[in-house]
Amino acid sequence: MDSTTLTIGPGFRLSDVDPGSTPGFTSRGSRSPKKRGKTELTARVERLAELQERLFASSTGGARDSVLLIVQGMDTAGKGGIMRHVVGAVDPQGVTITAFKKPTDEELEHDFLWRVERRVPTPGLIGVFDRSHYEDVLIGRVRSLAGEDELERRYGAIVEFERGLVERGVRVVKVMLHVGRSEQKERLGERLERADKHWKYNPGDVDERLLWDDYQAAYQVAIERTSIPEAPWHVVPADKKWFARLAVQQLLIDALESISPQWPTADFGVEREKQRLAAT
Amino acid sequence: MDSTTLTIGPGFRLSDVDPGSTPGFTSRGSRSPKKRGKTELTARVERLAELQERLFASSTGGARDSVLLIVQGMDTAGKGGIMRHVVGAVDPQGVTITAFKKPTDEELEHDFLWRVERRVPTPGLIGVFDRSHYEDVLIGRVRSLAGEDELERRYGAIVEFERGLVERGVRVVKVMLHVGRSEQKERLGERLERADKHWKYNPGDVDERLLWDDYQAAYQVAIERTSIPEAPWHVVPADKKWFARLAVQQLLIDALESISPQWPTADFGVEREKQRLAAT
Repeated sequence: MDSTTLTIGPGFRLSDVDPGSTPGFTSRGSRSPKKRGKTELTARVERLAELQERLFASSTGGARDSVLLIVQGMDTAGKGGIMRHVVGAVDPQGVTITAFKKPTDEELEHDFLWRVERRVPTPGLIGVFDRSHYEDVLIGRVRSLAGEDELERRYGAIVEFERGLVERGVRVVKVMLHVGRSEQKERLGERLERADKHWKYNPGDVDERLLWDDYQAAYQVAIERTSIPEAPWHVVPADKKWFARLAVQQLLIDALESISPQWPTADFGVEREKQRLAAT
Repeated sequence: MDSTTLTIGPGFRLSDVDPGSTPGFTSRGSRSPKKRGKTELTARVERLAELQERLFASSTGGARDSVLLIVQGMDTAGKGGIMRHVVGAVDPQGVTITAFKKPTDEELEHDFLWRVERRVPTPGLIGVFDRSHYEDVLIGRVRSLAGEDELERRYGAIVEFERGLVERGVRVVKVMLHVGRSEQKERLGERLERADKHWKYNPGDVDERLLWDDYQAAYQVAIERTSIPEAPWHVVPADKKWFARLAVQQLLIDALESISPQWPTADFGVEREKQRLAAT
């Protein structure tokens, strides 16, 4: 899996991305791509786990690096599946997941970045945002929760905020899970078919769906305005769940490899400690 | 795996428990118990995952239940392995892990239960404590960080606190991972042998080890004083990692089965929503 084709470049247009495509995944052999993708996902779990352990260990030696994975996408785009199947394969002690909901009254009293700043991963950790400050320029724009001036201010504030994160050692990995309109219809339909899926369904999901084009436009602007070299956006076609999971796993591995975390050296005398232990 | 033998009863003596034993695990067939235990652990993952999803789902329908797993044990007892291999097999969106360290200055300004209360799982979640308020009556006693009167007050406060938790729907599962003294020596030794394990070693671990008997005595008192019918202690022999993991997994499954969480019924008109969706 080569993730470089997922990174947004100049002239990016969301409408050019086919949600059913699998860019960077080379098809070969006679097995189905889905089967091969799932096998690859499992095979890479160990690599991701080792890198995560190194990241955590390095922080005990004073390293300041961390990773922040931001996952955005329309309803049913597969955010939950990323949490379960990609993030869930990592040692839970090294991960903090934050699902951002409708802001509380307390949160609304502060600037929109206030609640986000509080959930930035500390050194050694992988932080994961299920939705994020980008909702404030997505639903914020579509539902006119903020005026044009305020939206403009927010794009700038986000860029400044994320640059600050990168400067202090946080690798920011921004992912939009790009599900197609008809695939979403199918997935919402499944939630209505099965009684054990009803709890995942919300009548508001259809209201949002009716604003599909507005959301796509809001994503287009947000991605354009906030994709910076230090923290570019990645658009991941998400109609094929196996592909989206593999792609996000690879993006995490890439971020960790760019840190190249090292086991810290002992800050105690190893031989002396062996003797002390032997004497007990 | 039958977990009932792990529950503390009247006249319990910690020194009677063999850390190398596997109570409740029936040996049969020709395969090694370790292999069979590992297979059983994997086989039970799905059951645990389903119960967790039901618990989470039920809370969206208004149910107030949650689970709090408290894991205590000497250094190297295997707390981290429980987090990785038992808790880590559950959807990370449904779990909050808290590792309690040496209290901060802010925490010390409050009663010892203050920081604990803040981490109690909300409805639908499984909360896991890696160490807990029990440290305040363990290291608190061994290192004389609190006087006898204060320790007495704490046992009472803990019982009252946990009764309150149970009353508001939190199932409290208390586990002591009981590692043997010689097994601990071996595990600490391994951390000193391997450069990629040095970061897990702390010279303070040997200092604590020198107080082994004091800690065992402190555990004995704490378990006696705080094992109540609503929230009994479970002592899990921990020299065999595979057994300890299987036992804690079973205790979690037991707690969830006692809740018997149900899928919530839809609070919307399913047929009407199908029509609305079809029209999009």
